[in-house]
Amino acid sequence: MKLAISGKGGVGKTTLTALLAREAVSQGYKVLAVDADPDANLPTTLGIEEEIAPLAELGELIAERTGGATGMIKLNPKVDDIPERYSVHKDGIRVMVLGAIRGGGAGCACPESSFLRGLLGHLLLERDELVLVDMEAGIEHLGRGTAQGVDALLVVVDPDRRSLETAARITRLAQEIGLGQVLAVGNRIHDPSDGEYIESGLSSGVRLLGYISYSEPLRLSGREGFPIIEESVRREAGKIFSALARKASRSEGG
Amino acid sequence: MKLAISGKGGVGKTTLTALLAREAVSQGYKVLAVDADPDANLPTTLGIEEEIAPLAELGELIAERTGGATGMIKLNPKVDDIPERYSVHKDGIRVMVLGAIRGGGAGCACPESSFLRGLLGHLLLERDELVLVDMEAGIEHLGRGTAQGVDALLVVVDPDRRSLETAARITRLAQEIGLGQVLAVGNRIHDPSDGEYIESGLSSGVRLLGYISYSEPLRLSGREGFPIIEESVRREAGKIFSALARKASRSEGG
Repeated sequence: MKLAISGKGGVGKTTLTALLAREAVSQGYKVLAVDADPDANLPTTLGIEEEIAPLAELGELIAERTGGATGMIKLNPKVDDIPERYSVHKDGIRVMVLGAIRGGGAGCACPESSFLRGLLGHLLLERDELVLVDMEAGIEHLGRGTAQGVDALLVVVDPDRRSLETAARITRLAQEIGLGQVLAVGNRIHDPSDGEYIESGLSSGVRLLGYISYSEPLRLSGREGFPIIEESVRREAGKIFSALARKASRSEGG
Repeated sequence: MKLAISGKGGVGKTTLTALLAREAVSQGYKVLAVDADPDANLPTTLGIEEEIAPLAELGELIAERTGGATGMIKLNPKVDDIPERYSVHKDGIRVMVLGAIRGGGAGCACPESSFLRGLLGHLLLERDELVLVDMEAGIEHLGRGTAQGVDALLVVVDPDRRSLETAARITRLAQEIGLGQVLAVGNRIHDPSDGEYIESGLSSGVRLLGYISYSEPLRLSGREGFPIIEESVRREAGKIFSALARKASRSEGG
């Protein structure tokens, strides 16, 4: 199962990615969690204290793999050894940090962009683990070929109009690049009216998988970086993961 | 005065940009507010209901200005007429939407990237208004030459470790590209301990300009998109703008 998680910055994308990764491990999945949002910090959220250098910043590696020094850029660089060599394990989850995937659209052939796109394609098309990719709101760099490896795009929204606007933009992009199934999770729900607000504001064709309630302990634990998850929040995440696994397997079946 | 506003997604960058723009107008400045974060929505926050297409998506305009169709890319495209032609006025503020400035580092010469960098350089180096740029956390695309036109980079942080980590990364980038003065604003402050947490977590060399308190009416108004600002919040923003204007003029004086 391959899942991309996106949404406006600050809606709780990274926290949800971490919650789903833990739930997947507890249900026996082999999990690869990929931080592809330069503005997120998935390792900290998963309790990893060591600093992991984003792959985008490993200039020598990128130059070596894309042949940048020769004046020609390989558009399909060798990347299959990267997950094993450049990842950190924690609590049964393999974690990778990609960093900023920049590039001016499909025509861009900068070395970093070619390398990271190649790597993301490999992760989404060829790995046999459950892959969760924490992505920024701009998902265009997935590309059509890679997008087809994604079983579902999960868009996280909170009860704020701008987060719904971003969700609508992401949904449009997903349709353009052929990313089939778009699902939503409502986060930071204070009361039922927040849920109704989100439900009525989602684009048509987007299925709402469930909600995560607002949690004051979770907000306060943000100071330490590692989230404190209340049992009620864990149960909500568990339900969302189960719904997700059902939908993804149904989509694989046909 | 030229100000860039940055910070982790969701910390309230766009709301602060809007608050400062209004404050500047009320103090008699001519204001140009630039939305350079594809994940933000400055027009909505300023009460503009019409949709403004991001300049990054105006493919024909970009091709025309960068000469993309000729097979050669002009690195200094003509852009000085763009602010007048592609902006919307509201309450004395001129608003422009740039969209995603992508590009794999300084070596990237994609048409969109050349066009938007040229435009940002023009706005920051040549305009005689107060320019406020709402930027994403990745500020690398400012480039050294343009960065030197910025009087101050304002980093917005909330009491969350990941927002401080992003602030530290932005500060490092700012120093690398020669962007002189880095200032911080603490947002969404619930109580004095939040302020102390932020103060103790900022990188050395970053000066804390002030705080904006957490406001429940502001959070709730997010559903409508247009923020409801309490008088107390407005006063806090006013103090921050005055401190900013003092610092920027001091930096100009030498």
